[in-house]
Amino acid sequence: MSEKLQVAVAGIGRMGMRHARHFATLTPRAELIAVCSPVQAELDAAQKEFGVRTYRDYEEMLRHEKTLQAVVVASATTVHAEQAIKAIEKGLHVLCEKPISTSPEISQSVVTAYEKSKKNHPAQKVICGFSRRFDASYRDAYQRMANGDIGTPAVFRSQTCDKLDPSGFFVAYAEFSGGIFVDCSIHDIDLALWFFGEESKVKSVSAVGITAVQPDLRKHNDRDNALGIIEFYGGKIAQLYCSRMMAAGQEDCTEVTGTAGKIAVNTQPQLNLVNLYEPTGIRREIPADYYGRFQAAFVTEANEFTACCLDNTRPPMSLDGAVKAVTIGCALQESLISGKKIEFDESGRRVEQARL
Amino acid sequence: MSEKLQVAVAGIGRMGMRHARHFATLTPRAELIAVCSPVQAELDAAQKEFGVRTYRDYEEMLRHEKTLQAVVVASATTVHAEQAIKAIEKGLHVLCEKPISTSPEISQSVVTAYEKSKKNHPAQKVICGFSRRFDASYRDAYQRMANGDIGTPAVFRSQTCDKLDPSGFFVAYAEFSGGIFVDCSIHDIDLALWFFGEESKVKSVSAVGITAVQPDLRKHNDRDNALGIIEFYGGKIAQLYCSRMMAAGQEDCTEVTGTAGKIAVNTQPQLNLVNLYEPTGIRREIPADYYGRFQAAFVTEANEFTACCLDNTRPPMSLDGAVKAVTIGCALQESLISGKKIEFDESGRRVEQARL
Amino acid sequence: MSEKLQVAVAGIGRMGMRHARHFATLTPRAELIAVCSPVQAELDAAQKEFGVRTYRDYEEMLRHEKTLQAVVVASATTVHAEQAIKAIEKGLHVLCEKPISTSPEISQSVVTAYEKSKKNHPAQKVICGFSRRFDASYRDAYQRMANGDIGTPAVFRSQTCDKLDPSGFFVAYAEFSGGIFVDCSIHDIDLALWFFGEESKVKSVSAVGITAVQPDLRKHNDRDNALGIIEFYGGKIAQLYCSRMMAAGQEDCTEVTGTAGKIAVNTQPQLNLVNLYEPTGIRREIPADYYGRFQAAFVTEANEFTACCLDNTRPPMSLDGAVKAVTIGCALQESLISGKKIEFDESGRRVEQARL
Amino acid sequence: MSEKLQVAVAGIGRMGMRHARHFATLTPRAELIAVCSPVQAELDAAQKEFGVRTYRDYEEMLRHEKTLQAVVVASATTVHAEQAIKAIEKGLHVLCEKPISTSPEISQSVVTAYEKSKKNHPAQKVICGFSRRFDASYRDAYQRMANGDIGTPAVFRSQTCDKLDPSGFFVAYAEFSGGIFVDCSIHDIDLALWFFGEESKVKSVSAVGITAVQPDLRKHNDRDNALGIIEFYGGKIAQLYCSRMMAAGQEDCTEVTGTAGKIAVNTQPQLNLVNLYEPTGIRREIPADYYGRFQAAFVTEANEFTACCLDNTRPPMSLDGAVKAVTIGCALQESLISGKKIEFDESGRRVEQARL
Repeated sequence: MSEKLQVAVAGIGRMGMRHARHFATLTPRAELIAVCSPVQAELDAAQKEFGVRTYRDYEEMLRHEKTLQAVVVASATTVHAEQAIKAIEKGLHVLCEKPISTSPEISQSVVTAYEKSKKNHPAQKVICGFSRRFDASYRDAYQRMANGDIGTPAVFRSQTCDKLDPSGFFVAYAEFSGGIFVDCSIHDIDLALWFFGEESKVKSVSAVGITAVQPDLRKHNDRDNALGIIEFYGGKIAQLYCSRMMAAGQEDCTEVTGTAGKIAVNTQPQLNLVNLYEPTGIRREIPADYYGRFQAAFVTEANEFTACCLDNTRPPMSLDGAVKAVTIGCALQESLISGKKIEFDESGRRVEQARL
Repeated sequence: MSEKLQVAVAGIGRMGMRHARHFATLTPRAELIAVCSPVQAELDAAQKEFGVRTYRDYEEMLRHEKTLQAVVVASATTVHAEQAIKAIEKGLHVLCEKPISTSPEISQSVVTAYEKSKKNHPAQKVICGFSRRFDASYRDAYQRMANGDIGTPAVFRSQTCDKLDPSGFFVAYAEFSGGIFVDCSIHDIDLALWFFGEESKVKSVSAVGITAVQPDLRKHNDRDNALGIIEFYGGKIAQLYCSRMMAAGQEDCTEVTGTAGKIAVNTQPQLNLVNLYEPTGIRREIPADYYGRFQAAFVTEANEFTACCLDNTRPPMSLDGAVKAVTIGCALQESLISGKKIEFDESGRRVEQARL
Repeated sequence: MSEKLQVAVAGIGRMGMRHARHFATLTPRAELIAVCSPVQAELDAAQKEFGVRTYRDYEEMLRHEKTLQAVVVASATTVHAEQAIKAIEKGLHVLCEKPISTSPEISQSVVTAYEKSKKNHPAQKVICGFSRRFDASYRDAYQRMANGDIGTPAVFRSQTCDKLDPSGFFVAYAEFSGGIFVDCSIHDIDLALWFFGEESKVKSVSAVGITAVQPDLRKHNDRDNALGIIEFYGGKIAQLYCSRMMAAGQEDCTEVTGTAGKIAVNTQPQLNLVNLYEPTGIRREIPADYYGRFQAAFVTEANEFTACCLDNTRPPMSLDGAVKAVTIGCALQESLISGKKIEFDESGRRVEQARL
Repeated sequence: MSEKLQVAVAGIGRMGMRHARHFATLTPRAELIAVCSPVQAELDAAQKEFGVRTYRDYEEMLRHEKTLQAVVVASATTVHAEQAIKAIEKGLHVLCEKPISTSPEISQSVVTAYEKSKKNHPAQKVICGFSRRFDASYRDAYQRMANGDIGTPAVFRSQTCDKLDPSGFFVAYAEFSGGIFVDCSIHDIDLALWFFGEESKVKSVSAVGITAVQPDLRKHNDRDNALGIIEFYGGKIAQLYCSRMMAAGQEDCTEVTGTAGKIAVNTQPQLNLVNLYEPTGIRREIPADYYGRFQAAFVTEANEFTACCLDNTRPPMSLDGAVKAVTIGCALQESLISGKKIEFDESGRRVEQARL
């Protein structure tokens, strides 16, 4: 076997530690060599589990790790773009957690940095980690659509709905999350772009929402349940639902209706293959969170990102698409708060409401 | 057993014949005595099957049938209101097929006629046949919500999606149907009002749509797939999908998410309890049309309508609600065509977009 | 419409009252005219609900009801055969609840009486009420098999499993039920004969069982859970499970595997189309008893029995098959108790274990 | 991280290569160092994929690989025991594919060798690879039963049913497979022992079978479909189905009914979370073979076997249980062919049928 991709993980909170674990133990062609975090306890835990070098400072890590080839950016969303750009400018491969940024402009700046850097590093890979792109069921669905099994895909429905966290942690979190459409529905938007075609052009978005369980979210211009509609040029429409109050667990499902059939992914969620027959009926559990649903996809992501870096092959998604997803997510979030429909012309520019 | 309710059916096309059959053979407390239709062949068929008196003219039927107690209006939508009002003015009970009319104003005129007539006929019953109100699964769902099983219902999703009819019959039909939101989603709107409470007040509606399989629908200002959002005052939101192009069959399902749980009705549609294990996998069929899904509900409707007429008990829904459903359906249809969000104040009046 | 079949019900305990109701109110071509029961309270209830003539004595009913055309025998199993024969000898049509008798010989005596009577009453109909034969899902399964959809049916699995009744009523009931294989599995055996062909010849049966919840059943040579295997001549085998201790409710399901596919009926039981999403997962309820599962089938049974009597058409099953089912059920029950395999030669005679 | 377990795989046919892959790439704490096979092409393929040393001769591998710590025996069933014993006698850890042998006596000889060797190598681990013991769903089911969630487990149903292989490969394979009960149902038997308790004592077995698609199996005293019943002392019973002719794919499912509930595993098989809505209905695919169903379990097996070798912890199953499973499987296979019930006394000895 060839040599292993030298990987560092920036940000080792809950999801960062998982990324670290995937690269350290479940990605045979990668080697985790360093991690960084501003939190010493996190560094200690990573050092203990992986025996890697640890850094309090991201730039110091980039400077010191001479063999470093790839960085996984799993830090707080607010620093995603900045850290990604710094790694990009050093010619490193980057796997950046979603969203690149809660701002379309900042997201675009990462693409710009990448395009500039690629002139000197033509084999450099930078992707945004939309984990569902690596999920076996979504891939099966995509392949069938690409085969024409449902005719022309025309109507998309998708939801990203979190189990209710009674601690209300998500209220504080909402301050920097970009809002529920940017934090949750970004995945559904990415799926819509994947299934309808990356070249799809948004025509309009509309959204409404409520605070059914956490009125305090309004302080951060956010909601705990929201519905959105996206219209694309070319006769395609999408319907979104995002929520923070699912009782049973994580409920992420997607349906695409085409002119000759429909494909549904996870419309009957389940934790595993067990059914319980009890005096109250038949019951099954469902995953408590997105990681319970998508763990295998994250591992595939780590392996495929590693392979495309080492083999200089094309990654399964473009960085441009990630910016487009942020743009749509932000527009939905704006519509959610303003109550106004937002329209775009075919060049992607917003059509301002006529003012007389 | 007491004497039987004397019933006539006006309009005996496909659905009218079914109503006739339900009253003639599956409603022990009713007796079908007459039918009317402008089509002689339909009258002949009904005469043969039920041995009833037949009329080409609706008013003649009302005049001649001295023992008549109740009329089922199952004629073309365009004459629903007119026929209903004529029966109402004679003091007859009326079961009117949905929608009362494709116009909110005309729908309201039926209510007005009923209110006037009731002064002289306090036991008179007039209902609009929202069949799902009589479906065992929807009733189970309603009862659980009424028990508080899901906390406060807050987010509603429902779809009425017809199997694709390759003949394109629905294009001609669209001329008088009132549009897909009035023809199909009216059921979902009625369910939203039922589950959120009849007193719910609509705040806004938005819709988008496409013609994926039948561009000719645009001639009649209609679409073959549409998505809608309804906002209600008091923190409740609803998401609708209506379609004419389902490959597998009728797909009508509903979900209501509350602050403590969710109830789903028919999110895993099926024709019966059979599963087929074939070289291509496991397959089940689903009902081809709404009658395949709701036949038992229609029979329940016939029996309960009969019982409430004979026993002078309260019918399971108000006629006012049916007008409200038409109003919302028409607003969604208008938004679908205009692309504009439509807003209502708390008194139910439309808020006109500010014009400077 | 032609005149109505004049029907009486003998035995109006729980199931008898249901039969009475089906014939009185849900079978348009039948008229319930009389019922009999040794229990005055039952007669009073029937009189009140149906306004029919009532009898304490079965023979008196047969004598007095001069217009009587058909009898539904729904009395205690111990008198099924005797009552059926009396009605048969009067030339009446008979719908006899299962089993005809818990004895193959007595069951056969009903067939003999019927064959004799038919010489004088060639249009006379006598059937044993295997309700599943009238169930839409089982019929769909049968039709698909008849079409060759699964190739040659070869392996059958079926179970009849009752919800645990904590009152233990079934212990006393076991004294006369014929045992769990005769009481419960008789339905599965009938299905095996239907799906494999009425002409199927049993080759051997084996059974084992336990008393997991009601050791007292052993007093009556019965068990609360039992497993059986039936071998048929011609390369077909069947697997049975019967139980009295299902926590969730009635679980009756059937699978038939053929050389080219498999058909499953009710392997995912459900009460209706509702799913509940709760903090403990997703839950659905299932029917509490066989009537919750098969109510519509019983109504179909009443209507089709009525139609075949009035129109002199062939009933959907032969009386011979019912005797065969009892014979197999009794052999399984014997094997359950003795622990010995029981073998039959191709003429249907038992092969005694060689004794040297 | 500590040093890695040095592993060799003996036999690198289809399943052996999978084991090699799991240890080489998906088991972070193991290192695959050698493989052996009598087939040069297989050795070449393994050398190319893993860069390991290759051997035509098993004993030579054991002699030359001085650092070897553990052997995975994945060769033909006929040499499982012999290869296992050779490794055991060298003090190596062994993961032996199922069944240890098709003979209970030979299986026992492996246990005897292990017991002898353990005196000198107290930390030595030898397990038989019952993959389902490592499956997340089966483990969830086990844990719930251990918690008492279904009361006392009493009735077990399980099936191992292969997708029909039209090539008929399994006919030739049957010569050495030990028969369908030893080859397929051994997994179900192992599950019964796990769920009812390893100490469970078999009381009797009965079986019947047919050759529905491959009459040639009779040459090898085998069948393509078989049903079995196992009785255990202490009031527990089990029902088995094994088949080689499933149209849709691998159908392995298990149900355990207890005095207070039931647990079902995989009674609704599926390949992934995708459902296809087509003109013929709703369809899902299922795994084509056991590896499609249990791949993750095999990886867990590799990791847990590695961990228990390195950390000297208790493996999740005893080797004794594997012998017991072979003994029951062989008895079922004998009953399948002889048509006779086989009984055992509580000490595990066969009770011979009384001969006068």
